[in-house]
Amino acid sequence: MKFCSQCGASVTLRVPTGDNLPRYVCASCHTIHYQNPRIVAGCIPEWEGRILLCRRAIEPRYGLWTLPAGFMENSESAVTAAAREALEEANAVVENLSLYGVYSLLHVSQVYLMFRSQLKDGRASPGQESLEVRLYTEDEVPWEQMAFTVVHEILHQYFAERRSGVFQLHVGDIIREADTFRIHRYS
Amino acid sequence: MKFCSQCGASVTLRVPTGDNLPRYVCASCHTIHYQNPRIVAGCIPEWEGRILLCRRAIEPRYGLWTLPAGFMENSESAVTAAAREALEEANAVVENLSLYGVYSLLHVSQVYLMFRSQLKDGRASPGQESLEVRLYTEDEVPWEQMAFTVVHEILHQYFAERRSGVFQLHVGDIIREADTFRIHRYS
Repeated sequence: MKFCSQCGASVTLRVPTGDNLPRYVCASCHTIHYQNPRIVAGCIPEWEGRILLCRRAIEPRYGLWTLPAGFMENSESAVTAAAREALEEANAVVENLSLYGVYSLLHVSQVYLMFRSQLKDGRASPGQESLEVRLYTEDEVPWEQMAFTVVHEILHQYFAERRSGVFQLHVGDIIREADTFRIHRYS
Repeated sequence: MKFCSQCGASVTLRVPTGDNLPRYVCASCHTIHYQNPRIVAGCIPEWEGRILLCRRAIEPRYGLWTLPAGFMENSESAVTAAAREALEEANAVVENLSLYGVYSLLHVSQVYLMFRSQLKDGRASPGQESLEVRLYTEDEVPWEQMAFTVVHEILHQYFAERRSGVFQLHVGDIIREADTFRIHRYS
């Protein structure tokens, strides 16, 4: 951020009075421009024991596999956002959404809200942002070609709990450390 | 938003190619400025059957009661953010946080992530943004002086479940309709 989105003057990075973190502040109109984490809403569409994955047609991680997920929009419900992403990325209608994973990704300031869901009629096809979509059993999942650590983690938990038949909510952080990621699990 | 934060030129509101929602787009450098919901992280600090509430010293809702909660910061964990807000608003140390409520507030584009928690040693005092803080039993809660519908809803669920001894995760939307709010509960 270099310019004020309200008046067009230059901004400077400084700690405002009464605050304890540096913010971009306009030198002219004094607007404080707060920057906050963004929400990625998505789901784990299941049909007859198989999980729907999408192969990415966009950067980052072009060509790798992920769950349908994307940035939540203003004036939207998190649940609606998760279902919308399945429709956009995989032409998939999902039902019975229940919250399954809440992960904070500190290095990119994102919070993933991931829902379990049922894929209606087992139907899916590639949306604009997907090269292909496919239903996978646990054994078939291309674990070495997953796009994101957070999706790998969620899918891993999901299949483990699916065997036991008891799903519980997972809350965690994904923390980048040098060239790898550490996962901190709260539950 | 009137000006591009990258180059200072004017922005126009239009649907970019390949998108389906209007965005602020820079007429000069073509940067697309996405706007997304913000996360409010907070907690329900409990000590010996009583709940800690804060009376707001800031707008909006100056003078009314709420749970400690505030905007999550970049590079922060949602769990850490919830505990930080208790410390900032009530000098309260909270422990054993577990996610309890996830509510989308469509009219203000906010998502509340609210955690159950234990208040350490029952200690609290007003922070900079609170006029006073107090531990309340269910009967004592000033229900008619609550600052926000979402906090009223969460506290109501909390006390109901506290009596039964079984807490479950709540996911819902708060939707403004004319002069009132409708609550849509998914779980």
